Amino acid sequence: MDGFADEIANLFPNLYGQPSVSLVPGQSEVKGQSLKVGVVFSGGQAPGGHNVITDYLQERARGSTLYGFKGGPAGIMSCKYVKLTADLIYPYRNQGGFHMICSSRDKIETPEQLKQAEETVKKLDLDGLVIIGGDDSNTNACLLAEYFRSKNMKTQVIGCPKTIDGDLKCKDVPISFGFDTACKIYSEMIGNVMVDARSTGKYYHFIRLMGRAASHITLECALQTHPNIAIIGEEVAAKKLTMKNVTNYIADIICKRMELGFNYGVIILPEGLIDFIPEVKQLIAELNEILAHDVVDEAGMWKRKLRSHSHDLFEFLPQSIQEQLLLERDPHGNVQVAKIETEKMLIQMVEAELDQRKQKGAYKGQFQGKPHFFGYEGRCGFPTNFDANYCNALGYATGILLHSGKTGLISSVGNLTAPVDEWTVGGTALTSLMDVERRHGKFKPVIKKVLVDLEGAPMLKFASLRDDWALKNRYLSSGPIQFVGPYANDINYTLMLELGAQFHF
Amino acid sequence: MDGFADEIANLFPNLYGQPSVSLVPGQSEVKGQSLKVGVVFSGGQAPGGHNVITDYLQERARGSTLYGFKGGPAGIMSCKYVKLTADLIYPYRNQGGFHMICSSRDKIETPEQLKQAEETVKKLDLDGLVIIGGDDSNTNACLLAEYFRSKNMKTQVIGCPKTIDGDLKCKDVPISFGFDTACKIYSEMIGNVMVDARSTGKYYHFIRLMGRAASHITLECALQTHPNIAIIGEEVAAKKLTMKNVTNYIADIICKRMELGFNYGVIILPEGLIDFIPEVKQLIAELNEILAHDVVDEAGMWKRKLRSHSHDLFEFLPQSIQEQLLLERDPHGNVQVAKIETEKMLIQMVEAELDQRKQKGAYKGQFQGKPHFFGYEGRCGFPTNFDANYCNALGYATGILLHSGKTGLISSVGNLTAPVDEWTVGGTALTSLMDVERRHGKFKPVIKKVLVDLEGAPMLKFASLRDDWALKNRYLSSGPIQFVGPYANDINYTLMLELGAQFHF
Repeated sequence: MDGFADEIANLFPNLYGQPSVSLVPGQSEVKGQSLKVGVVFSGGQAPGGHNVITDYLQERARGSTLYGFKGGPAGIMSCKYVKLTADLIYPYRNQGGFHMICSSRDKIETPEQLKQAEETVKKLDLDGLVIIGGDDSNTNACLLAEYFRSKNMKTQVIGCPKTIDGDLKCKDVPISFGFDTACKIYSEMIGNVMVDARSTGKYYHFIRLMGRAASHITLECALQTHPNIAIIGEEVAAKKLTMKNVTNYIADIICKRMELGFNYGVIILPEGLIDFIPEVKQLIAELNEILAHDVVDEAGMWKRKLRSHSHDLFEFLPQSIQEQLLLERDPHGNVQVAKIETEKMLIQMVEAELDQRKQKGAYKGQFQGKPHFFGYEGRCGFPTNFDANYCNALGYATGILLHSGKTGLISSVGNLTAPVDEWTVGGTALTSLMDVERRHGKFKPVIKKVLVDLEGAPMLKFASLRDDWALKNRYLSSGPIQFVGPYANDINYTLMLELGAQFHF
Repeated sequence: MDGFADEIANLFPNLYGQPSVSLVPGQSEVKGQSLKVGVVFSGGQAPGGHNVITDYLQERARGSTLYGFKGGPAGIMSCKYVKLTADLIYPYRNQGGFHMICSSRDKIETPEQLKQAEETVKKLDLDGLVIIGGDDSNTNACLLAEYFRSKNMKTQVIGCPKTIDGDLKCKDVPISFGFDTACKIYSEMIGNVMVDARSTGKYYHFIRLMGRAASHITLECALQTHPNIAIIGEEVAAKKLTMKNVTNYIADIICKRMELGFNYGVIILPEGLIDFIPEVKQLIAELNEILAHDVVDEAGMWKRKLRSHSHDLFEFLPQSIQEQLLLERDPHGNVQVAKIETEKMLIQMVEAELDQRKQKGAYKGQFQGKPHFFGYEGRCGFPTNFDANYCNALGYATGILLHSGKTGLISSVGNLTAPVDEWTVGGTALTSLMDVERRHGKFKPVIKKVLVDLEGAPMLKFASLRDDWALKNRYLSSGPIQFVGPYANDINYTLMLELGAQFHF
């Protein structure tokens, strides 16, 4: 991100260059004054969010006033809030979801919107504003911090790292909250399906998991459950794989397993898979162009406008997907990639490929695919002990950062592989996470989503084991999340591996 | 079932009239002899099944030999088995699924198949055969017991009540194993989706649950989670509701909720819902007849052959469902009702209805439906403490029944609302569960699936609360199943209510 240091310095003149803060017991004590603080949930739900608020209020903010903005950032702009008393908050402690004050995906970006936010924080006389959200929301937090500073307002802005997708992290902020819980909920269900697959012995289960931009969830669930196949989008993109490559990869393993006597299996994939396939992106772009100007004639003359490779790909796709691409379009007339049920598409393509192999005598099994999508049910579960503790610590850090007069930071918790009472807290300059994108000739600040590092420890661990998992059945069924007992405090593999923790895998 | 007593007596001359057995400590002691016993899983998986086997082997059958037939009843006929030693069994204790020896849906019915089973049990010199299965499998167990008795063979046959659907039960066998766990897994996920719905505030989630022939799972999940709407198939059938009635019922509640400011909700339904709707059955029957003889012309002339009401219903269905009915047919050419994704169909119909109301000014909201199917992931989870204990007790009962020389019984466990050490065990004559159906002029014995009793305590409890749940948000999120802690031994509401247990709801 150093390449854009100047642009970032220009965009955030009042914040740029702030060092990270590490809060040391005794030296970073609360000043003791009563603060007025607003808090908001921004974006999709993630388990544990309520604890960010409960801890701050109960432990750090005695005498302070806490306002919860209702319905996400829109609540800031419209000044819709509720005063968060200890009695009101108590029932939400250790509960999943954001339903105490709800959430939304609005942004505070335009001059008018910034002005509305300014009016609200002035009206409530806020010392601090806490924004609990993902990459976009923390970009927004940084913009607000800069804006308030530029106006010499007292309101400090602190972000908190939230997203089940696990794609908001950096050295000081090794994980976002919610990832641990979501992966464990999905892993419970994947494990159940694995036992079912093995007991029944006749189905291939294709399980699509959340994660549109990054495949961290799929990778973590693979490490937890040992599926026969896990498709990592970032690897597909890096290797420039085609739909046909992915299809063949799956079909090859199914054929080998058939020879070993296994006519069943479990395959997991991220919901964003087809966004990672270069040829699909190209096809979509061409389709959008053609559909904007041409009529789709039944004879298929329109297809001649597709480039040769895109034409071949289109013909390779199952008919139902072709129809979906042509018929379901958003209000701008664009193809709706997000609506494609990737697991069903893959089943159809693998089925067609295996049928061909059967005709050639290269496959003798009976392929039956079962599609699954594990999505919403993972976003709002009760937080694991890790997420509950982590959110308590984030709330604690946030409180101290506010009392210390900091702004434009994201709360951070360190030493996470140690017991909870040895965790450290601090804050990291949001500008240090920032990158810029050039849009319409202007630089726009963004916190880039952190994708799966193909050379990172989690991926290398997975890559070293996947051939074994593919042909042998190494399924692990972790069971439901436990809050007490020997495994209740286990941390996800991704974090442990990234932090270099030693453990028996 | 008394109406067919003579037929049942004729079908089971060697078994009919056996009394139920209650095993009393001290009076029903194990004879102590070493037995040779075969065991088989039959039909779909259910959590806890392995414990039926582990307990018997470890506690009651020291010195006995246990054979596990592989791959379900087919393993009996082909004499494919594995000797179940304590070492082999140990890792499966308290694990979900049937993967230790797997399962299948084969039946042992024809004279040839019965002969094959006879050869196997003779070859292995079996004293006992334990069949762990649902209604069909226990019917099969009864047939085998009768057959072996009629041949003066020593092999006793004992059934065990298994099905997550909860539709195999009677006075002495108040519940089948697996129901408790499956409902709690689904309830965990429904609870998570409820929190998500409330946090986001803009989606109606339509959740289809397992349960094709009966709606016990949907009813139990309703009692556990308090959804805005739960459709009970048996009630739809009893009230002879139409698709339009069901659609309007849902749309009415959505409109009322909109006026209260709630533009979200959670609706649960059994996968067998449309099988319960009389007019749909009629339409399917007519379609099967027409499609068998006529060409489906594009102009729609074929539709004239539908009766007036069926024609109207067909036109009322969403286009995608119409196409599915016409195109997807089984090898016999019949419409595949089971493939219809009922939750998606309902969303489309409710959407169309609300669009009409919108045009009339009777609805002002923005309806967005999200479909879910919670299925396979509930069949193979780790058993709850209840199911684990219940299966241990069933195994214990089975062992004693075999040692007592009984045959043609299904194991039973009583006093289930008391602490586990006060539970009682026994066996019930399978013929007492039996009914007969007349097919091709012959009487065929069947254990009829037990449907939801519309006057039973669980349904009455639900009916007394649902109007409140519909408009207010009484969602309950139970969280993941726990194995230790204050709620770990909770029993499902259906069983407690049916047994008349007093508790705070």
